[in-house]
Amino acid sequence: MSGNTFGSLFAVTNFGESHGPAIGCVIDGCPPGMELSETDIQPDLDRRRPGTSRHVTQRKEEDKVEILSGVYEGKTTGTPICLLIRNTDQRSKDYGDIAATFRPGHADYTYLQKYGLRDPRGGGRSSARLTAPMVAAGAVARKWLGRQHGIVFRGCMQQLGEIEIGFESWDHVPRNPFFAPIADVSRLEDYMDALRKSGDSCGARIRVTASNMPTGLGEPLFDKLDADIAWAMMGINAVKGVEIGAGFASVTQRGTTHGDSLTPQGFATNNAGGVLGGISTGQDLEVFIAVKPTSSIISPRETIDVNGQPTQVITKGRHDPCVGIRATPIAEAMLALVVMDHVLRHRAQNAEVQSPLPAIAASFL
Amino acid sequence: MSGNTFGSLFAVTNFGESHGPAIGCVIDGCPPGMELSETDIQPDLDRRRPGTSRHVTQRKEEDKVEILSGVYEGKTTGTPICLLIRNTDQRSKDYGDIAATFRPGHADYTYLQKYGLRDPRGGGRSSARLTAPMVAAGAVARKWLGRQHGIVFRGCMQQLGEIEIGFESWDHVPRNPFFAPIADVSRLEDYMDALRKSGDSCGARIRVTASNMPTGLGEPLFDKLDADIAWAMMGINAVKGVEIGAGFASVTQRGTTHGDSLTPQGFATNNAGGVLGGISTGQDLEVFIAVKPTSSIISPRETIDVNGQPTQVITKGRHDPCVGIRATPIAEAMLALVVMDHVLRHRAQNAEVQSPLPAIAASFL
Amino acid sequence: MSGNTFGSLFAVTNFGESHGPAIGCVIDGCPPGMELSETDIQPDLDRRRPGTSRHVTQRKEEDKVEILSGVYEGKTTGTPICLLIRNTDQRSKDYGDIAATFRPGHADYTYLQKYGLRDPRGGGRSSARLTAPMVAAGAVARKWLGRQHGIVFRGCMQQLGEIEIGFESWDHVPRNPFFAPIADVSRLEDYMDALRKSGDSCGARIRVTASNMPTGLGEPLFDKLDADIAWAMMGINAVKGVEIGAGFASVTQRGTTHGDSLTPQGFATNNAGGVLGGISTGQDLEVFIAVKPTSSIISPRETIDVNGQPTQVITKGRHDPCVGIRATPIAEAMLALVVMDHVLRHRAQNAEVQSPLPAIAASFL
Amino acid sequence: MSGNTFGSLFAVTNFGESHGPAIGCVIDGCPPGMELSETDIQPDLDRRRPGTSRHVTQRKEEDKVEILSGVYEGKTTGTPICLLIRNTDQRSKDYGDIAATFRPGHADYTYLQKYGLRDPRGGGRSSARLTAPMVAAGAVARKWLGRQHGIVFRGCMQQLGEIEIGFESWDHVPRNPFFAPIADVSRLEDYMDALRKSGDSCGARIRVTASNMPTGLGEPLFDKLDADIAWAMMGINAVKGVEIGAGFASVTQRGTTHGDSLTPQGFATNNAGGVLGGISTGQDLEVFIAVKPTSSIISPRETIDVNGQPTQVITKGRHDPCVGIRATPIAEAMLALVVMDHVLRHRAQNAEVQSPLPAIAASFL
Repeated sequence: MSGNTFGSLFAVTNFGESHGPAIGCVIDGCPPGMELSETDIQPDLDRRRPGTSRHVTQRKEEDKVEILSGVYEGKTTGTPICLLIRNTDQRSKDYGDIAATFRPGHADYTYLQKYGLRDPRGGGRSSARLTAPMVAAGAVARKWLGRQHGIVFRGCMQQLGEIEIGFESWDHVPRNPFFAPIADVSRLEDYMDALRKSGDSCGARIRVTASNMPTGLGEPLFDKLDADIAWAMMGINAVKGVEIGAGFASVTQRGTTHGDSLTPQGFATNNAGGVLGGISTGQDLEVFIAVKPTSSIISPRETIDVNGQPTQVITKGRHDPCVGIRATPIAEAMLALVVMDHVLRHRAQNAEVQSPLPAIAASFL
Repeated sequence: MSGNTFGSLFAVTNFGESHGPAIGCVIDGCPPGMELSETDIQPDLDRRRPGTSRHVTQRKEEDKVEILSGVYEGKTTGTPICLLIRNTDQRSKDYGDIAATFRPGHADYTYLQKYGLRDPRGGGRSSARLTAPMVAAGAVARKWLGRQHGIVFRGCMQQLGEIEIGFESWDHVPRNPFFAPIADVSRLEDYMDALRKSGDSCGARIRVTASNMPTGLGEPLFDKLDADIAWAMMGINAVKGVEIGAGFASVTQRGTTHGDSLTPQGFATNNAGGVLGGISTGQDLEVFIAVKPTSSIISPRETIDVNGQPTQVITKGRHDPCVGIRATPIAEAMLALVVMDHVLRHRAQNAEVQSPLPAIAASFL
Repeated sequence: MSGNTFGSLFAVTNFGESHGPAIGCVIDGCPPGMELSETDIQPDLDRRRPGTSRHVTQRKEEDKVEILSGVYEGKTTGTPICLLIRNTDQRSKDYGDIAATFRPGHADYTYLQKYGLRDPRGGGRSSARLTAPMVAAGAVARKWLGRQHGIVFRGCMQQLGEIEIGFESWDHVPRNPFFAPIADVSRLEDYMDALRKSGDSCGARIRVTASNMPTGLGEPLFDKLDADIAWAMMGINAVKGVEIGAGFASVTQRGTTHGDSLTPQGFATNNAGGVLGGISTGQDLEVFIAVKPTSSIISPRETIDVNGQPTQVITKGRHDPCVGIRATPIAEAMLALVVMDHVLRHRAQNAEVQSPLPAIAASFL
Repeated sequence: MSGNTFGSLFAVTNFGESHGPAIGCVIDGCPPGMELSETDIQPDLDRRRPGTSRHVTQRKEEDKVEILSGVYEGKTTGTPICLLIRNTDQRSKDYGDIAATFRPGHADYTYLQKYGLRDPRGGGRSSARLTAPMVAAGAVARKWLGRQHGIVFRGCMQQLGEIEIGFESWDHVPRNPFFAPIADVSRLEDYMDALRKSGDSCGARIRVTASNMPTGLGEPLFDKLDADIAWAMMGINAVKGVEIGAGFASVTQRGTTHGDSLTPQGFATNNAGGVLGGISTGQDLEVFIAVKPTSSIISPRETIDVNGQPTQVITKGRHDPCVGIRATPIAEAMLALVVMDHVLRHRAQNAEVQSPLPAIAASFL
């Protein structure tokens, strides 16, 4: 209710602050009997980790995950899985003057207004560092969904500031620091180098997908699959927009174009982005998010201090000049968590359902 | 859990099908002691009602609301408020052939896959008719929020198909059938007349706002105010995209531009759309949604039937050629319901909070 | 959150007041494809209905249920089932002086304190009449559980005031107005006749059971099956105590006696009442509840009025001299609702579980 | 949903196994600005700790609590509070043969049936050790409720096996290892010494109360204050019965006796146990629970092994001969957690309520 639990049947409760002793999460609802160890989780954390290239924050965090519960003799027991990540690099003094002023575009101001006090060290609870436990939980969901249904989650960057990035192949994504699906990222590197030099930050557009989706996931009226995806994505730090399938392009489409024709071999197109009426069609989920530019920048900004007096703020410390770069593995994890929850929800109510369709009945039913 | 309840502390459980005996909702959590009668609710329902112009469906539904519980001697008692709307215009035969085929872009297919059977009359549960109880519940929330906090919810159309609609004044909105904030809508009328004649449908872009917002609403990490707004909006039939504030435009913004400067008089701009770190800033909430073109169109579409055989479908009946037209009062209601829930949630945990800020401390704290 | 929804996956939202226009509920989460009509529900309502013997309230309510949604062509569609019961016998004037005073033992006082106002007609929301929608919802759960798992719910009276009632046979229960499992109820009739004459009321002890239970239902740590049963039973009007299996008798038992031995043929005894560690054992659920004497009695009682002044109150109107009599079908329904929810919850997380036990592996696994 | 979260607005998510690396909980919803450190929590944990007298288990656990998050500069921040307790005394070999057989009266059997596998070390997740994090969370709730409302929670033993324990004074409770409210406990000591020698175990009856209660707490219809208390108490390991106020004694009471008269000075008696219609009256909450005898005993018991073959089981290791002894601080904590949740829930919906009563209007309103 206070907003730190994600999901209902595969419920992930997140805790911790950027510079406190530890961050982590408790997963409640993981089915029993699945093999699980830290080595299933660490690779996803490493993809999100800071310090992996010059284009992201140079904060040095190992993000080493420890399983504290819920696993016995290498298998999940069906009881809560607590994942703990100790914070190791806490240069709190970097954040000294942030405590007395508000960064434009940052949660400094709203946290103070909501709670009457705040932990200013590294953004405290509002830090994007808190996405690490979600990536860890997402890795657990991904493993289960992969095993049970063969579902695959992938993401990539589709725009960096003004630079639109075409799609060449998923194979390129792990080979460059931008999660870009293109072979040559030199233009992106130059762009980022210039941006850093200017002391400014930029936004990004990220695409995230799920393949081999079961049909029938999603609860109308309100916990529609796409509604829950929108909720999950907008809950990621710095996200300001979410699209499913054709998204805002559907505004200028005609009904004759937008509606994806059905054929005995499946849908002809995917303007729906894999969701109709809030329920998965069996096609790939296609989601796009807008990530705003980082608010912690070295350029001076007009603001007020905690006494309400006008002042300027410069954010030193080690910040991502484009938080969108590291958003890809986060968005993948969030999508996996949404799908996981809906798989469990679906079978609670609909386990007996037999698809009446002979031809294109999807895997799930 | 099965997706028919909206909200947690101001929880609205929706029931009914388009052509069943009745639709309605149960509101659980309305504070006691507020004067309430059907006359508080009917005007909002009338704004959403079909048949009010030639540009929307000609289905004739009175959408007359009846309060079945939760009000005694004209005041809310704090117990559940059941709102009932009887369905009166049920020409079920119009929908006969829809039962055996799937409309491209419609939930026909996914409902059948999820549940193994479906009510095809007028779209059954997947009909946009089910937004009527939400508009009714929204009217209750709007009254309470207006009385207690002076919050005002407004919406308007900002794009109809290819036509971008500028903003002249909120005053124009109730004076035309498009909820357009402009004086002269003749271009929109011509556009819609041509569209209907062509047997096609189009999308729309809708803006919805909340003014006089309290500061401090929204629960990090996951039930962020903007995340819940995204969830609510994406849950409206036919919505494919949601933006908060600058939205997708923030991708190409710099941090120096995007971050709204703070001054002793308030924020200088509103790229944030009234939300930072998932918590309201006290500025107006600014939300934009993309509504896809109607899938029920008279133009023939390629599809399959329930035996998986290829066929064509033509949707007769009385459908909106642009569902986006009637989306404005719906989106306003949904926004009101999200804000209502967060006001109640906020004071559960934070009732004692005193803002430490002397100058621009918002009304809420 | 405001306490009018029962269950999570089979969620029943209850609405209405004793003398308002209608009472009812919305069931969200009923699996699709089950045949359902009013005739499945009405018999259970008739068992609970007032006016069926001289020993219960003479209020004349038909309690005729109407299905408003969620059923199409005689089958559940998986969407919310709204059940409506119109109130027909509303002699509001009977309750005139109750509005200004507080009945000892009644919710009059606490409702006024909690909400600042209350609907005094027939107890308003606090009336036991609001158990009728639960009996109706319970009938839906019972049908599904009977079909899918063969589970049978039964209840009976085990004590009426000072009279302990032995157990002869379930067959006797429907043949007398007390739900007593004995052939000769003349002693109970005399007792009630004398009680009515004295203008007083008495308590009762009710037993309720579930047979053919699946093994493995119940969620540790907190939503234990017995914990949820206790919650459901204590939520019934006038219940002051709940026991599972040996209940309070276990205080004086030894571990060597209490712990039910396991044999290849099953458990040797059932002190556990069918639950160990919060999870069903596959044995019968055995639940006992204490129902307090009715607080609405004709004997004068010391109390205060709404101005805080001392006064006396006499409750006229048509009240049950022992609310425990009609509690049996209510408790059965509540038990069915708890089991239903846990069946759905269990299969969400544990659908893949294979029992490693060869011999007494229960039906569910 | 999977049963490891307690409460809704003050939500405590519990994790860990008896012999895993750690146990703990995450509290979500603690109001910000309260001073909090480990020293507020440790005393309650020490009251529950094993090894404090010869009458309880000799397992040596320090139960040292560490606050991992949610506190900054000694004050709660309104963000999740993670409390961690490392397990230090894990003699797993003590439990070797338990893995292959089922203790009568224990969750061994049901866990295996539900999950298909289980962690047998010290009972794994079903161990009463998992009440420690609840006691820790309860300490946080108690501090807040004490500060804000002056509410005090107390408990005591009222029966040990066959020995009924009278009530002399709360002052005696902390001075003996039984939490008995009597000066001379030699009879209890003799009883326990004989019991241990016999290799058997016994049950207990525990009373737990809350004083200085606000009026108006509790949500009808279902989340009644007493229903939630029953749920919380029945959720404690080994509890088989719960009573509120007069409890099962109300079965033989008359309405003229049971209903507590109201006077300008307050209620004359407290058969209600502080709850009417599910809402607090402002009187003391009075709750009684039945704790069954420990199932882990050294006396040989008939059972089956995991191959379904008949065998005998003897439980060595270090077990409480009466788990009821350490139940008192646990029950106090659980009651505090229920009240805490309802205080937050109440003010969400009812913050504006003004009591219309001049005389005995309680503190809360």
